[in-house]
Amino acid sequence: MSPGVLDPASEGPLARLAALGLRLPPVASPVAAYLPAVRVGDLVWTSGQLPMVAGALAVTGKVGAEVDPEQAHDLARVCALNALAAVASVVGDLTQVRRVVKVVGFVASAPGFTGQPAVVNGASELLAAVFGDAGRHARSAVGVAALPLDSPVEVEIVVDVGGVPGQGGG
Amino acid sequence: MSPGVLDPASEGPLARLAALGLRLPPVASPVAAYLPAVRVGDLVWTSGQLPMVAGALAVTGKVGAEVDPEQAHDLARVCALNALAAVASVVGDLTQVRRVVKVVGFVASAPGFTGQPAVVNGASELLAAVFGDAGRHARSAVGVAALPLDSPVEVEIVVDVGGVPGQGGG
Amino acid sequence: MSPGVLDPASEGPLARLAALGLRLPPVASPVAAYLPAVRVGDLVWTSGQLPMVAGALAVTGKVGAEVDPEQAHDLARVCALNALAAVASVVGDLTQVRRVVKVVGFVASAPGFTGQPAVVNGASELLAAVFGDAGRHARSAVGVAALPLDSPVEVEIVVDVGGVPGQGGG
Repeated sequence: MSPGVLDPASEGPLARLAALGLRLPPVASPVAAYLPAVRVGDLVWTSGQLPMVAGALAVTGKVGAEVDPEQAHDLARVCALNALAAVASVVGDLTQVRRVVKVVGFVASAPGFTGQPAVVNGASELLAAVFGDAGRHARSAVGVAALPLDSPVEVEIVVDVGGVPGQGGG
Repeated sequence: MSPGVLDPASEGPLARLAALGLRLPPVASPVAAYLPAVRVGDLVWTSGQLPMVAGALAVTGKVGAEVDPEQAHDLARVCALNALAAVASVVGDLTQVRRVVKVVGFVASAPGFTGQPAVVNGASELLAAVFGDAGRHARSAVGVAALPLDSPVEVEIVVDVGGVPGQGGG
Repeated sequence: MSPGVLDPASEGPLARLAALGLRLPPVASPVAAYLPAVRVGDLVWTSGQLPMVAGALAVTGKVGAEVDPEQAHDLARVCALNALAAVASVVGDLTQVRRVVKVVGFVASAPGFTGQPAVVNGASELLAAVFGDAGRHARSAVGVAALPLDSPVEVEIVVDVGGVPGQGGG
């Protein structure tokens, strides 16, 4: 099955990631007094995720200046992958995700850059590819002055894991 | 009854909008893999709303430069109206709204512009006019570098629709 | 017991604040049509909090220019304290807080400043000091162009007060 053709009935989220050539990365150890994600009731809220790969940012700078929008789109996809790893660190398994509720994409933007939606589509498209209709979400895309470590993109998500027994977080 | 005098007991939200000379606009078709709003449990989370009217932005630019704060206040009001349309697209009817929980207003700000609260009041005041005390909400107002399509303002809201049967979204 | 040594079993949140030399400030009267915090179900969502002390901002400007990161770290701590006061204004008592769910820290950032995480740690560390493990949260830290009143920092939080009877807000 080609990566572009989604058959939600026959595959789980991890299989769909694999079909895209992706797998969940390890979750970065929390620095300071915060966590990759927290569950409360049916919702898991992730921290803002940077496009870290193996613990480092491959690309830094502002979108529309040092970073072009196509690169930033791919970085937003990495952010979303890291967000899924953060979710899995709390609920153990992406099959627990009933739906993606909300995505906020922050794009470090050079003056005059207003193409934030196309950048954040990198995250939205990955979530739709992994979860099908359940991956479609409400979303805000905004252009900010600067992000941690000079990251071009940061993405946070909220997902519904309703039906999973238990309560807890971290 | 004049628009400035609110009698929540005698009118529904749509009547109050009409008294303000407003009606719910059509909801923009989702572009890419996201939705105007998603319901999870008792909450409806909207996407960030731009002040689109009939599918276009009438005004673009930064507040404090090309756009003055009074204009931006009125644009925030349009954002809130579009957010209500997004909510209605999920729950069918604004009478389902038990209360407005949270508003985040992003204001594309020229250097030195720090009047974001007065701008976002355009959204807050509309919600109070439409829902009365139930329209009063927690709120964050921030000044950002740039917004999609060079919009001066973007507003997202979360509302409580508790008591409405069913679960779903989109 | 020194402020740096936390014994969550023997002290309540207010005692821990006192051990840090802090107490909950009065909550600023709401301006415009919004509230310091709103409760819906088990969650309390605060408005974005500025580092107001006795109704005024002691420091203004951008972090990385007029404001240094250490100052900004301490201001983020004040924001978190104000957020706790906003929570208490809704649920009456910080002992009702079961856990801190989410923190978003907005840092008004001079060009080139990318140390937002260390700034927002001021908020995260206070929450951990007051609530112990229950104070550890998901977090986003972003650098924005400008904040209300030229504040260097703004922090909003969401906390879980599950188990507290009643429903309401404001």
